[in-house]
Amino acid sequence: MSNSEIDKLINEISKLPGLGRRSAQRIALYLLKNKDRSLIPLVNTLSEANLKIVNCAICGNIDMVNPCSLCNNNKRDQQTILVVEDVSDLWTFERIGFFKGMYHVLGGSLSAMNGIGTDELTISKLLKRIDSQKVNEVILALSTTMEGQTTSHVVADKLEEFENLVVTRLAQGVPIGGELHFLDENTLNTAFQSRKKIV
Amino acid sequence: MSNSEIDKLINEISKLPGLGRRSAQRIALYLLKNKDRSLIPLVNTLSEANLKIVNCAICGNIDMVNPCSLCNNNKRDQQTILVVEDVSDLWTFERIGFFKGMYHVLGGSLSAMNGIGTDELTISKLLKRIDSQKVNEVILALSTTMEGQTTSHVVADKLEEFENLVVTRLAQGVPIGGELHFLDENTLNTAFQSRKKIV
Repeated sequence: MSNSEIDKLINEISKLPGLGRRSAQRIALYLLKNKDRSLIPLVNTLSEANLKIVNCAICGNIDMVNPCSLCNNNKRDQQTILVVEDVSDLWTFERIGFFKGMYHVLGGSLSAMNGIGTDELTISKLLKRIDSQKVNEVILALSTTMEGQTTSHVVADKLEEFENLVVTRLAQGVPIGGELHFLDENTLNTAFQSRKKIV
Repeated sequence: MSNSEIDKLINEISKLPGLGRRSAQRIALYLLKNKDRSLIPLVNTLSEANLKIVNCAICGNIDMVNPCSLCNNNKRDQQTILVVEDVSDLWTFERIGFFKGMYHVLGGSLSAMNGIGTDELTISKLLKRIDSQKVNEVILALSTTMEGQTTSHVVADKLEEFENLVVTRLAQGVPIGGELHFLDENTLNTAFQSRKKIV
């Protein structure tokens, strides 16, 4: 269409993750068709989110307070730090709810392709946290992708300098409820190599 | 999460067509992670769109001028009106570009389930347009769904009162480039019943 303003809107929406041009067009038309009921409330919510939601300076979580409510909660175990790639991973742990320690959000994983090096992640912040407070264990809960595992190795290497610090990673193997014949080769191989003696 | 502002943002985004809660969460986190590069430009574009983009009072198209640039273009054939359900259908015709007449956007199709009756569509506006200007042909280009076809019948019925007005609908049959064995029963049946003599 020759209409620059509509084009601009569709372009801006299509930059959002997971949206192609067609879904962006559909959303733009929906918003313009229901300005009062959808476009204006969305603008207001986004503007409020922009003002009120902040990054936690300690762990990298997002919240309406800084430090975040998790870092502020002194009932949580301050001596265990669970390292995740993104806030969404932190949310997954919180939703399940068994983990009662502290978090550290790296902000992604190392990726030459996406131009993400160690400086783009909050690794040095993590080292400072461990340096300045008593931490017993760091649990690396990164993706089991190539990037996630590389990141895990790099972080683990840097944590070696701390004496008496235990560094762990999540167990890898057959997912619970998983049927073996649906499993990919890598998972099955990993599960086989890491088999546990039970009798 | 207990964080009301983030929840509100995810809720608002998940109302958009085609987005579930998980995609909404992904988009919310993306926006909050890149406030300067994504959230703020999106708010600005949406606010501008809200102010600048308007509905055409004649045909229902959206544009930055009212009447829209298509209705204002007197090189187009004023005596043919193509009736579509939504602006996106109008865009499809304009993208292909062979149609040089006027449009009329109904605003959807009749649907008892979605509470859309004749009053929710711009049918009476269409009748007034035909009444006040010389129109030779109305082409009904509605979806070949149950709702679209019902709407087509209802509009066609109302157009009967106009003498010398030709009312047509798009041909139905095998899509070009379509392989017969992938076709659904209804399309194949329609194509068979409407077969054309060629020799």
